[in-house]
Amino acid sequence: MDNKLHLTQHISKKFNQELEDVRNQVLKMGGLVEQQVSDGLTALLEANSELGKQVVERDTDVNKMELDIDEKCTEILARRQPAASDLRLMVSIIKTITDLERIGDEAEKLGRNAQNLSHKAGANHHFLELRNLGEIVKKMLNRSLNAYARMDVDEAISIIKSDVLVNQEFDTVSRLLIMKMMEDPREIKNTLYVSWCARALERIGDHSQNICEYIVYLVKGKDVRHLSLDDIKKQIQ
Amino acid sequence: MDNKLHLTQHISKKFNQELEDVRNQVLKMGGLVEQQVSDGLTALLEANSELGKQVVERDTDVNKMELDIDEKCTEILARRQPAASDLRLMVSIIKTITDLERIGDEAEKLGRNAQNLSHKAGANHHFLELRNLGEIVKKMLNRSLNAYARMDVDEAISIIKSDVLVNQEFDTVSRLLIMKMMEDPREIKNTLYVSWCARALERIGDHSQNICEYIVYLVKGKDVRHLSLDDIKKQIQ
Repeated sequence: MDNKLHLTQHISKKFNQELEDVRNQVLKMGGLVEQQVSDGLTALLEANSELGKQVVERDTDVNKMELDIDEKCTEILARRQPAASDLRLMVSIIKTITDLERIGDEAEKLGRNAQNLSHKAGANHHFLELRNLGEIVKKMLNRSLNAYARMDVDEAISIIKSDVLVNQEFDTVSRLLIMKMMEDPREIKNTLYVSWCARALERIGDHSQNICEYIVYLVKGKDVRHLSLDDIKKQIQ
Repeated sequence: MDNKLHLTQHISKKFNQELEDVRNQVLKMGGLVEQQVSDGLTALLEANSELGKQVVERDTDVNKMELDIDEKCTEILARRQPAASDLRLMVSIIKTITDLERIGDEAEKLGRNAQNLSHKAGANHHFLELRNLGEIVKKMLNRSLNAYARMDVDEAISIIKSDVLVNQEFDTVSRLLIMKMMEDPREIKNTLYVSWCARALERIGDHSQNICEYIVYLVKGKDVRHLSLDDIKKQIQ
């Protein structure tokens, strides 16, 4: 069975275009957020306070995109009064951009920590513990955004399952940090900041999982409640 | 100027009733979440693992309420095709319940920590550091839910401003915990758990702030974009 969502084609070309535009805006916001996470992590690992500063500053762009898309969705809801699949798409977008914005906030925290700590001697050493966790979370976010772009529910379910890897790696990092604190109590404060960055990464994993849940909700919701996949396929032929 | 939102009265009594019902469901969910936060905190402070277990178990009720309200909102959007103030109300509810559900998740974390740590000797002592922070956050959540019930934008703005108190107290707690870790490195692991509970409380403050932002968005949105307050007043006379 085809487990992807095929968006309804509308008689109004303009409406099609509007939905396509807002979906593209979400994907663009996703791309920016992905870049923010990647740069925030790089700033930490390379003790690059200038890059950290850029991440913090760019968070206002992320916030602005959320407001713009929100307004666009409300406007479409009011003017087009969409039903069935289109309505669920709107609701899922409104929810998805909230998670994207929160991922942006977590990336900002990474950037802020990179800014504050990079000048301290030895501090960057601790952040290396975050490399693996960071890579796993970046991969998970990337896969979530691809699944969102393709409305691929099988991939979404597989990503949801993979969150356990994030939690395992988070536990590993936490154990390492506790050992470090015990070995060198003077480094406790800095190491606590590292543990908060680990938490931020873990939360980015949670938000990626939320996005995948919206994909399932959206696709399965249509499947079960409103339209059969056959009906959707007929409509896009 | 009257800075509260007065909901439109509709020709259809049934529609009025539906909107009132869904608003009441949100308030009920808010009440449950408030209880969860309060019980989670009590479980930590009193080292009551049985209460902690209850909080963890009851989180499924919170999640179910979110799904129910979500479905109800989507159904109203599809069937009633609300415009202006009603549409904004629906969108704000969809967003608010997401934050309420996340507050529930943070409360669950408090409960889980109470369960895991209460049997350890001396562990409950550390959690006393959380008492002040917990009280401030509980108050902030309570005020947010009251402002939501009354759609009171002035109060919402005042609550948003008060988030700085949460952050100050969080910093105070963090400094205390760092000192504790330095004084007794064997307690580092338990103290790290306490610091995560502090983070959970701080995040509940953030979510409360989000709810207040939806109130402002909803009320100001109507004020500026759709209806003058005079028009709303005329409609409810």
